[in-house]
Amino acid sequence: MDLDKLAKLRERYEGIDGSVYLSEKFQHVLEKCRKNPRSAYKPFAGISTFMDLPYDEDYEKLDVAFIGVPMDLGVTNRSGARFGPRAVRNVERIGPYHYALDEVPSAMLNAADIGDVRFRSRYSLNDSIEDIEKFYKKIVAAGVKPISIGGDHSVTCPILMAIGEGEPVGMLHIDAHHDTGGPYDGEKFFHGGPFRQAVLAGVLDPERCVQIGIRGPAETNGEFAYEAGMTVFHIEDVERMGVDAIIEEAIKVLGDKPFYISIDVDGIDPAFTPGTGTPEVGGLTPIQVQLILRGLKGLDLIGGDVMEVAPQYDPTTNTAQVAAQMAFEIFTLMAFCRK
Amino acid sequence: MDLDKLAKLRERYEGIDGSVYLSEKFQHVLEKCRKNPRSAYKPFAGISTFMDLPYDEDYEKLDVAFIGVPMDLGVTNRSGARFGPRAVRNVERIGPYHYALDEVPSAMLNAADIGDVRFRSRYSLNDSIEDIEKFYKKIVAAGVKPISIGGDHSVTCPILMAIGEGEPVGMLHIDAHHDTGGPYDGEKFFHGGPFRQAVLAGVLDPERCVQIGIRGPAETNGEFAYEAGMTVFHIEDVERMGVDAIIEEAIKVLGDKPFYISIDVDGIDPAFTPGTGTPEVGGLTPIQVQLILRGLKGLDLIGGDVMEVAPQYDPTTNTAQVAAQMAFEIFTLMAFCRK
Amino acid sequence: MDLDKLAKLRERYEGIDGSVYLSEKFQHVLEKCRKNPRSAYKPFAGISTFMDLPYDEDYEKLDVAFIGVPMDLGVTNRSGARFGPRAVRNVERIGPYHYALDEVPSAMLNAADIGDVRFRSRYSLNDSIEDIEKFYKKIVAAGVKPISIGGDHSVTCPILMAIGEGEPVGMLHIDAHHDTGGPYDGEKFFHGGPFRQAVLAGVLDPERCVQIGIRGPAETNGEFAYEAGMTVFHIEDVERMGVDAIIEEAIKVLGDKPFYISIDVDGIDPAFTPGTGTPEVGGLTPIQVQLILRGLKGLDLIGGDVMEVAPQYDPTTNTAQVAAQMAFEIFTLMAFCRK
Amino acid sequence: MDLDKLAKLRERYEGIDGSVYLSEKFQHVLEKCRKNPRSAYKPFAGISTFMDLPYDEDYEKLDVAFIGVPMDLGVTNRSGARFGPRAVRNVERIGPYHYALDEVPSAMLNAADIGDVRFRSRYSLNDSIEDIEKFYKKIVAAGVKPISIGGDHSVTCPILMAIGEGEPVGMLHIDAHHDTGGPYDGEKFFHGGPFRQAVLAGVLDPERCVQIGIRGPAETNGEFAYEAGMTVFHIEDVERMGVDAIIEEAIKVLGDKPFYISIDVDGIDPAFTPGTGTPEVGGLTPIQVQLILRGLKGLDLIGGDVMEVAPQYDPTTNTAQVAAQMAFEIFTLMAFCRK
Amino acid sequence: MDLDKLAKLRERYEGIDGSVYLSEKFQHVLEKCRKNPRSAYKPFAGISTFMDLPYDEDYEKLDVAFIGVPMDLGVTNRSGARFGPRAVRNVERIGPYHYALDEVPSAMLNAADIGDVRFRSRYSLNDSIEDIEKFYKKIVAAGVKPISIGGDHSVTCPILMAIGEGEPVGMLHIDAHHDTGGPYDGEKFFHGGPFRQAVLAGVLDPERCVQIGIRGPAETNGEFAYEAGMTVFHIEDVERMGVDAIIEEAIKVLGDKPFYISIDVDGIDPAFTPGTGTPEVGGLTPIQVQLILRGLKGLDLIGGDVMEVAPQYDPTTNTAQVAAQMAFEIFTLMAFCRK
Amino acid sequence: MDLDKLAKLRERYEGIDGSVYLSEKFQHVLEKCRKNPRSAYKPFAGISTFMDLPYDEDYEKLDVAFIGVPMDLGVTNRSGARFGPRAVRNVERIGPYHYALDEVPSAMLNAADIGDVRFRSRYSLNDSIEDIEKFYKKIVAAGVKPISIGGDHSVTCPILMAIGEGEPVGMLHIDAHHDTGGPYDGEKFFHGGPFRQAVLAGVLDPERCVQIGIRGPAETNGEFAYEAGMTVFHIEDVERMGVDAIIEEAIKVLGDKPFYISIDVDGIDPAFTPGTGTPEVGGLTPIQVQLILRGLKGLDLIGGDVMEVAPQYDPTTNTAQVAAQMAFEIFTLMAFCRK
Repeated sequence: MDLDKLAKLRERYEGIDGSVYLSEKFQHVLEKCRKNPRSAYKPFAGISTFMDLPYDEDYEKLDVAFIGVPMDLGVTNRSGARFGPRAVRNVERIGPYHYALDEVPSAMLNAADIGDVRFRSRYSLNDSIEDIEKFYKKIVAAGVKPISIGGDHSVTCPILMAIGEGEPVGMLHIDAHHDTGGPYDGEKFFHGGPFRQAVLAGVLDPERCVQIGIRGPAETNGEFAYEAGMTVFHIEDVERMGVDAIIEEAIKVLGDKPFYISIDVDGIDPAFTPGTGTPEVGGLTPIQVQLILRGLKGLDLIGGDVMEVAPQYDPTTNTAQVAAQMAFEIFTLMAFCRK
Repeated sequence: MDLDKLAKLRERYEGIDGSVYLSEKFQHVLEKCRKNPRSAYKPFAGISTFMDLPYDEDYEKLDVAFIGVPMDLGVTNRSGARFGPRAVRNVERIGPYHYALDEVPSAMLNAADIGDVRFRSRYSLNDSIEDIEKFYKKIVAAGVKPISIGGDHSVTCPILMAIGEGEPVGMLHIDAHHDTGGPYDGEKFFHGGPFRQAVLAGVLDPERCVQIGIRGPAETNGEFAYEAGMTVFHIEDVERMGVDAIIEEAIKVLGDKPFYISIDVDGIDPAFTPGTGTPEVGGLTPIQVQLILRGLKGLDLIGGDVMEVAPQYDPTTNTAQVAAQMAFEIFTLMAFCRK
Repeated sequence: MDLDKLAKLRERYEGIDGSVYLSEKFQHVLEKCRKNPRSAYKPFAGISTFMDLPYDEDYEKLDVAFIGVPMDLGVTNRSGARFGPRAVRNVERIGPYHYALDEVPSAMLNAADIGDVRFRSRYSLNDSIEDIEKFYKKIVAAGVKPISIGGDHSVTCPILMAIGEGEPVGMLHIDAHHDTGGPYDGEKFFHGGPFRQAVLAGVLDPERCVQIGIRGPAETNGEFAYEAGMTVFHIEDVERMGVDAIIEEAIKVLGDKPFYISIDVDGIDPAFTPGTGTPEVGGLTPIQVQLILRGLKGLDLIGGDVMEVAPQYDPTTNTAQVAAQMAFEIFTLMAFCRK
Repeated sequence: MDLDKLAKLRERYEGIDGSVYLSEKFQHVLEKCRKNPRSAYKPFAGISTFMDLPYDEDYEKLDVAFIGVPMDLGVTNRSGARFGPRAVRNVERIGPYHYALDEVPSAMLNAADIGDVRFRSRYSLNDSIEDIEKFYKKIVAAGVKPISIGGDHSVTCPILMAIGEGEPVGMLHIDAHHDTGGPYDGEKFFHGGPFRQAVLAGVLDPERCVQIGIRGPAETNGEFAYEAGMTVFHIEDVERMGVDAIIEEAIKVLGDKPFYISIDVDGIDPAFTPGTGTPEVGGLTPIQVQLILRGLKGLDLIGGDVMEVAPQYDPTTNTAQVAAQMAFEIFTLMAFCRK
Repeated sequence: MDLDKLAKLRERYEGIDGSVYLSEKFQHVLEKCRKNPRSAYKPFAGISTFMDLPYDEDYEKLDVAFIGVPMDLGVTNRSGARFGPRAVRNVERIGPYHYALDEVPSAMLNAADIGDVRFRSRYSLNDSIEDIEKFYKKIVAAGVKPISIGGDHSVTCPILMAIGEGEPVGMLHIDAHHDTGGPYDGEKFFHGGPFRQAVLAGVLDPERCVQIGIRGPAETNGEFAYEAGMTVFHIEDVERMGVDAIIEEAIKVLGDKPFYISIDVDGIDPAFTPGTGTPEVGGLTPIQVQLILRGLKGLDLIGGDVMEVAPQYDPTTNTAQVAAQMAFEIFTLMAFCRK
Repeated sequence: MDLDKLAKLRERYEGIDGSVYLSEKFQHVLEKCRKNPRSAYKPFAGISTFMDLPYDEDYEKLDVAFIGVPMDLGVTNRSGARFGPRAVRNVERIGPYHYALDEVPSAMLNAADIGDVRFRSRYSLNDSIEDIEKFYKKIVAAGVKPISIGGDHSVTCPILMAIGEGEPVGMLHIDAHHDTGGPYDGEKFFHGGPFRQAVLAGVLDPERCVQIGIRGPAETNGEFAYEAGMTVFHIEDVERMGVDAIIEEAIKVLGDKPFYISIDVDGIDPAFTPGTGTPEVGGLTPIQVQLILRGLKGLDLIGGDVMEVAPQYDPTTNTAQVAAQMAFEIFTLMAFCRK
């Protein structure tokens, strides 16, 4: 061990506080981190909000709004995702620094937790779909990018109705299922079909859609995805091609026009995200998803969501933590695409 | 079945909404309930706050402040109560109407969730005790009655330092343990001794203290309680005397001067409140505690707390629910002792 | 110890099998138990059915049909009771002998598990209510008494539409809530109002209704119950009057005409039945409910249900076990009121 | 508040350590507590042993030996009690002072955790029964009183073979089931029949046996109990007679000759002890059992056990805690019957 | 976005039901799916059976019989797998379509859940082994291929006694352990030795056996595997060789003669399958196993099993889901090897 | 199948016990295994100790001492690791044979579980750090290599103070975090900074340190690591480089001088090790860590630890099992570096 070097280290570091950095880079990062107004709280303390952002229902002035959508009337199997937003807010430690992308998104973007969509009814799926669409149209009209936490995946359809109203958007879609099914039990706005409805409504451009992690018995829902021209990577494609090849293809498909990210936590293997309504054995790992997302840095991301968190089935809170981390990845990507 | 009566019921009730009541009493209750500003949310939606009260850190104008005290450095065994306030906030349905006392406390009292005590350190018990005392002195100075959620029971000592500063207070104390022990591992502000310190500091009047539910191996901590003149009801006293006799005795001891309520959830049997640091087999039932509390209606209650909620040991969330209910009982009692 | 007596015991019992009894009574009981066609299976083996009865969808020939109603679209808070029937079927050991009533109901009544109500839709509460009513009308028309496992409590309204079609029935109702609320979020068939609708429809006679265990914040729902003339025992009434006085009153109210038993597991304290959608602290104990039910032996019971079992919140399976036991109590009572 | 009194309290208590007591009684208790050689450890630290006693396989010199019997091959339904001894050892805080009986048993009796019975086979119930009997005969021959933790209840039969070898013993028996059944699936040493075999072997005097908490579908097992002359209190007897009347009867039956205590945790309601193999809804509360046991103070207790702890079904560890507490109650009773 | 294309999509898809497909392929798949007689039920509804197949104990006419083997007397450590069949039946959504192999096995094969093996005794391992062998000999004699759900792995030995009676079979074996150990605690039919006994009995051809996922402390059990000529891939071989190379080797070893698939869920890492008796850190992932199985499409598969599911240790139900998925993979492979 | 071969296998293996091996190698392994003095116990039986080693507080004569360090006062978020040592001791089946390294470490090294560090205080982090350092200085002075189970990671600093006292050591460090942060909340001995303090104290040579698995928001803590010259592999490096390249680099950095292994279980993905205080999504897999450790065989390992096991967050016990396995890997490596 080089004693001179040790002496220098001691001289520089001994006695200084943990909040002092020598390198400009880290001091800079730290200063950004301090902009988070809730940094005075310990992680287990205070009111729970998404990303520990301030809670502020007045979204007009924001760049990015985090929104909870506690609605699960569209599920086909296990209900419970109405408690998803609450579970994700309760995650203690997310950010504020994203080391791999080297950014503190909350310092770059004016962001807040603006609370949850308010619903007329807790019994009617159709009323709820309407309420969501109306709410997001106001958000989008205000020029705010939404990051949403569900709720079941039926929620993404009315969000896209708002986001893609002017021009159809592309989408990176992490899921075990295509979610392009037709009406089921007579209901077209259920959680197995949001992307069929969004395409047919002209708000989602299927040729700029990439689905990753697809598997499971509901493949018949996939006919529409194929017919409409979506790019599909089944789980075995990811296993055999590797993450970098997937990223390369995704970038090609998404192009440089606006796109959305929709993550159903069931795209990930149930060992990592057991708390979800229609788990499918044999899925993605979180680090695979994280690397894919990071590979999209710089593309024109205009909104995103993480859906299907059902905490009743999540004894370790791992699912909520994965969801919170994915929302943070989306948030960080947004710091690179401001215009 | 009386058909005339049925006809009348139909005439009166059919087609009317659930928010319309015929009796003046219930219509009145309902109007009070609507004063709760968060009533637009479903129970599973929105930011979590104590009693679904508004979150507002500005306590000056309040009658009652709900405060989280996420600190568990004073425990002797299982840690975890630092997550207690968060767990109690997450309870979905508490109030706003208390049917047995026939009151809507949030309509009678100006109350809010003012967040958590902010701590300098998450490592130092002594610094934390100081931070709590300082914080509560400001609350009390503003004429606000605090209802606190812990956190371990060491927290109650600095709260009493604030509450009883002018004049020592009486106390109704639900617990498995006397909590009047002397310094342990060299530390006097641990969770087994808050009431010894409060008595010695002159802020708690032992002759106006009632302890209910006492049992367990730490009875040696009780010497001080007996010497100082506290009234003690062991669990077997409650079993054999019945709740009404306990209430009668408690009212005598507490008198008509200001008193505080401190509830350690371990006073209740672990079947009902498993999520706590030092569970003791063979305790009170929640309904016993509820009936005792309701028996104190009209006495001069100036503050209260529910402590030792450790959600890591609470797989059903029952402990948090019991704690929230007890806080609501305390809150409701306060609606009857405004001056 | 009397050696002669020991010698006699040895002579009588040594070497004989556990299936041989000396007393006529127990031999008789055992023979009845053997009529259970699934008695060849160990409790943990084979297909799971209610009460280990045979699974047979052909109900025409039955005295009693056990029916699952996996529908939870009527809940106001935690969903999940759609999995209630499955959870109750999985309970391993219920009956066949009821020692306190000294009867083997499966030997006295021709009974089967006839499966679940089939629903058109898993999204529409109103369609589901209709499907239930149609299904039960066929059951009732066939002269079969139904015992149902829910599902949320909104399910009981369409069941009563079938049961009380000819003549309004009385009801013993165990619950934390009156469940006589008016339309909520615009929906009258939600789980907080089934008994208002049943009374208004003329199928439930409110003056022959007894509600036991009532408590909690939804007391405003109770106006209709009081106005309509139901007899209400709050939890504190049970605590102070004792079970025997409650039974006496209940018998008076129910009289000797047909009545129904509806048990919401949230009537019981959440320590015993945590797995439910709207738990209320401070409830009944299972043995209190069992003793009340047994007190009704001989009255004219024509149907019953156990509702609101949400196994996602039931880590010990205790809630399902309590529900199964209560269904067994109801089943046994039916053995005493055959006509 | 009496200021003189406060001044005196301060004078006496301020600055003194928690290990100093003023009253002779508590100082005496404390000195006894310190005799526990493991008192230097925090409750969560060190090797886990029963009652935090020293671990010492050499039992010859002991008054009381705590023994684990990790065998569950005799269960009829849920297995898992082989992990019972480990779960009970892991309970953190039991004793050393019993406040209600005012005794520190570990200071009065030479006691140790002597480990577990060693078994030839983990597959053969019959070999295991033999191994247990041999092991306990050595313990009893050494004049040591055993307190055992199971393991399923079949274990108690070979223990009684050793304990009652010289003279048949009486028994206080807490259980949901009589456990006096005949051979089942061709096996007489299963957990539903230990007391039939013990009576027939002449080691258990049925006329000095009291069974408390009995209920459930296996009542047919009870024929032998009744025929042999055991005194049986069903759960409804306890509810209606009250604990003090039960104690009075129990004392009469047990008399002043040697007796054994056997506690099946399923005698207690599953809300308190879910972790067991054959749970029965509607049971005793722990405080009822504790009061009954304490009522036997001074009788000639020569051994005891707590059986059927299956920690796989015990997410809160409550069952293990109840079992540990009951073992401590038995241990304390032994401090009053030394000869 | 191509508007013409959108117009065409709309024309084709709008207003049509989710059960209508345009492509012949998917319409064909859907028609096959509808052959599943239980397709009228929601996934959470109705009696639970393996793969949602009809429950029918009459196996004579079947191609494939699903059988539960609820026996765990052969375990060396954690018991509980007696509840495995029930847990796997309760899995809600498995099949009916296998997208990767593009087949609906329940439409190609006449299959049913025929219930569980019935056992004389729940205490005797040897009697149970005999009962299993007898039961399977009847199944095999009827020309039915069994797919079995355990139960502990000792169960596979008597199954192979039936399956390989005429001619020794090959085996694909997924496991953490060789399971070729010699008698242990004097018992040769325990769960660590089924394949030694099967080889010695001449029903299993070791030179056509492939073991994958092997690791853990019991490697000494492997001597026999090596001596007998089994092909062994330890977990590190899979990590370093990759799945495709493993498949290639497996095909060589298995050849084109009849083979069996036996999956011990402990072959998979405990993060995915915690609910098992002897978990080993560092195992396979489910997708690795799925890909290996799918690689065997077309080989002559004559039976299979999934063993060691112990739901007491499976709080998320993930283990049961993995087991159900693996059984479905086996079932689908059978659709490709009908003769 | 070769019948001759089968005949030979039968001749050699039939009738022999599982403890007899034909190959010299396995017979040799078995003999070593038998040296484990606790081999007479079933895995679920007897007192729980690390690696099932004997419990013996007299460490003087040992080669290797297993030590519990039940202290978690240094955590920044979730407490609970004070129960880590107890949880790891309770793991049932670890070793004694390590198949991949082909060694039985307990037969090669004189090792014991010497219990836990005894602490003056359960409230003071600084006193605890001192107590640990003093304790380990005695261990190291006796020439004993420690393997420690924590406890939070602050514990490793005082251990290194003892281990590196004479000469700074190298370190293989598995973690999600650098743990080289400066004082936090005014406390330098917290769990985010042990390696900064150890380097500054001159006991840890940063240029011989390898950190693997790093990720998460606390990267700012990493400045010191980089400045001091540690080699850092983020999780994405492991994903992209593969395990073998990591091993090669690690060997270069560690060199042939003494080094220590410190494993924070949060280095591994929370799906495998949920039970920890600061989980980070997207981590290593256990088999990756195992292969890395095994790659260090023969290097001069002088101590090791596994830290941050918080069993309150570990419903499956998987975290404790991973920790136990990692401790066993370290133990086995020590068998190859005796001097």
